[in-house]
Amino acid sequence: MGIVVQKFGGTSVANAERIMNVANIVTEKYKQGNNMVVVVSAQGDTTDDLIEKANEINPHPSKREMDVLLSTGEQISIALLAMAIEKLGFPAVSLTGWQAGFVTNSAHSAARIRSIQKERIEKELDQRKIVVVAGFQGLNRYDDITTLGRGGSDTSAVALAAALRADLCQIYTDVDGVYTADPRKVPTAKKLEEVTFDEMLELATLGAQVLNNRSVELAKKYNVNLEVLSSLERKPGTVVKEVVKMEKMLIKGVAKDSNVARISVMGVPDVPGIAYKIFSSLAAKNIDVDIILQSIGRENTKDIAFTVNSGNLEAAMEVCNVFKDTLGAMAVLCDDQVAKVSVVGAGMQSHPGVAATMFGALADANINIRMISTSEIKISVLIDKEKADTAVQVIHDAFIH
Amino acid sequence: MGIVVQKFGGTSVANAERIMNVANIVTEKYKQGNNMVVVVSAQGDTTDDLIEKANEINPHPSKREMDVLLSTGEQISIALLAMAIEKLGFPAVSLTGWQAGFVTNSAHSAARIRSIQKERIEKELDQRKIVVVAGFQGLNRYDDITTLGRGGSDTSAVALAAALRADLCQIYTDVDGVYTADPRKVPTAKKLEEVTFDEMLELATLGAQVLNNRSVELAKKYNVNLEVLSSLERKPGTVVKEVVKMEKMLIKGVAKDSNVARISVMGVPDVPGIAYKIFSSLAAKNIDVDIILQSIGRENTKDIAFTVNSGNLEAAMEVCNVFKDTLGAMAVLCDDQVAKVSVVGAGMQSHPGVAATMFGALADANINIRMISTSEIKISVLIDKEKADTAVQVIHDAFIH
Repeated sequence: MGIVVQKFGGTSVANAERIMNVANIVTEKYKQGNNMVVVVSAQGDTTDDLIEKANEINPHPSKREMDVLLSTGEQISIALLAMAIEKLGFPAVSLTGWQAGFVTNSAHSAARIRSIQKERIEKELDQRKIVVVAGFQGLNRYDDITTLGRGGSDTSAVALAAALRADLCQIYTDVDGVYTADPRKVPTAKKLEEVTFDEMLELATLGAQVLNNRSVELAKKYNVNLEVLSSLERKPGTVVKEVVKMEKMLIKGVAKDSNVARISVMGVPDVPGIAYKIFSSLAAKNIDVDIILQSIGRENTKDIAFTVNSGNLEAAMEVCNVFKDTLGAMAVLCDDQVAKVSVVGAGMQSHPGVAATMFGALADANINIRMISTSEIKISVLIDKEKADTAVQVIHDAFIH
Repeated sequence: MGIVVQKFGGTSVANAERIMNVANIVTEKYKQGNNMVVVVSAQGDTTDDLIEKANEINPHPSKREMDVLLSTGEQISIALLAMAIEKLGFPAVSLTGWQAGFVTNSAHSAARIRSIQKERIEKELDQRKIVVVAGFQGLNRYDDITTLGRGGSDTSAVALAAALRADLCQIYTDVDGVYTADPRKVPTAKKLEEVTFDEMLELATLGAQVLNNRSVELAKKYNVNLEVLSSLERKPGTVVKEVVKMEKMLIKGVAKDSNVARISVMGVPDVPGIAYKIFSSLAAKNIDVDIILQSIGRENTKDIAFTVNSGNLEAAMEVCNVFKDTLGAMAVLCDDQVAKVSVVGAGMQSHPGVAATMFGALADANINIRMISTSEIKISVLIDKEKADTAVQVIHDAFIH
């Protein structure tokens, strides 16, 4: 008994049958006495279809107009789900992002939620209505429609759960929980009953596509009780929370990110301030840098290598090529045929065996490690892209039996 | 130079090519120095597709949710048209019904415009932006999305033109103006250069589907300069205004309405108050009555016959069957195999030859007249439905050479 926020992604509402299925899930929880707020994404391929419509007219539409266009996708979903709930005989009301009180900044297509004016939702909940909210969208201070960017419906749901102090936030998706690796690629992958926010965050950032990472950050910040589960099968999912039961399993997952590229700035003078100059220039262009490796200097020069998201490779190369001239670097090289593979698990730093096991598994599979990065809860290695799937499999099998 | 409101219907924005065509029409007028407000409908079959989606889930969805669903159709159109205008290098901004300030009552699916809060549009026009507005929709006082009902985009456009005191309101459609009869059925039909509001209103009400009649009423009330023209061909359309140039042509058009049914209440007592009782009861059920015919009383009884919209036939029969008992009528008969054919033209009442010509043409074609109704600017006859097209043709040819 309390407030439950549920979120259903595009595949969960892809057609009439699935929408009725969602209506059943929602009303079951409602019948138990809960106040229900349901966040939905656009149906199946709707967003892609709308993008194609736009591209036929203007390959470079303004982001403001793109947001007006794309926000219709969720608006269609909320109306249909509300109709499905009404069909089952329960009271429902659909609310667009702006009706639900989502106030965002003005970064069209990647807006951040500033606040949620929850009066309207609370009014509807007081009348025991099931409130169906359009995810992924909001309104900026100029009364213009904004979208949160892809995957933003997860963020909408968690933000609502935080604002309403919901007892539970259930993220329904097309997988039935968080696995130790991508179960479509690693048949031996196991489902986790529980995972901490930090572990989930690493897994999300590393390319485990279950939950949008902004939503996990938000859930951690406001300590939202999060559960990831499947809309297609009725079984328990994975609970994401601050502290989890001690399990035998130290490693929570193995994840792959193929969307990376490596840049090497070769032969820069070995004097103080060089790294600062490079990385502050990259930051100024909004380019996030992930793994950084600096060679031990010799002959008064050193090499600095780092990874960026593939999408930022071109922009990052432009920045670095400037340094080639001003700093006197010998060369700037790049390589996008790489992938990052990581093991994640709280407390692994106090278990030195983890790194050894990981590196051993890679060596046995004859996979060369090109960069290494470690944090309190993860170890990442950069390897050849074509060997990434094999790497995930062998690392997974080394840890999880 | 001034403010021009243009409206484009669903066929005019049906695909990318047509939207670019609309963008060209709009920007041409903009380049002449006009401030442009453009109202658009949903693309082609979008509305029907959305209705089908709803019906798959719930054959009787609430009207509130239906409005949330259907309003996405115009929202897609405005974004795409704004992108097309941007593509041509002109500044554009799309506004949904609520962003454009349309305040309506709460009659979901058939809402009436209460007012237009025009601050946002004026702000955008001040910045010389081309403002693209979603027709057919608004917001009620509870911040719920409403729609004006089918054809409502015409009304949106005229209401905006009135609120903004626009110099001209151009309704672009898939025909190039108002004709003396439906040109698809009457090959000899001629396009009118000008027509008065009253004539247009009769033509619209009588089933000439060029303009939604609420929009004509509104244009007459606020004396909006209206022009009906084609988005597909660049040629002058028909101007609708208060006073038109005297033309040789007395008859402005011949129109057919097949959507009628006749009810006859036979043998009611010939005492005062009978007609009042019948027609006030029908009005109480919101049933509009059109032609009324009352027989000359004989043997202390009389017959009362009238026509209603076919959609109201069942409800009207229920009302009349009550009278059969309480008033002691002998029988209540109905007939939906009828059609109404009318000639429209200002000043025809002072030309007695009009009725004679019309009735003569019908007699020559062996078409029986079952009811007659006249007003200052029209003569309508009720005839067999199967002969309606022939009737339109012969009447048209009798008047328009």
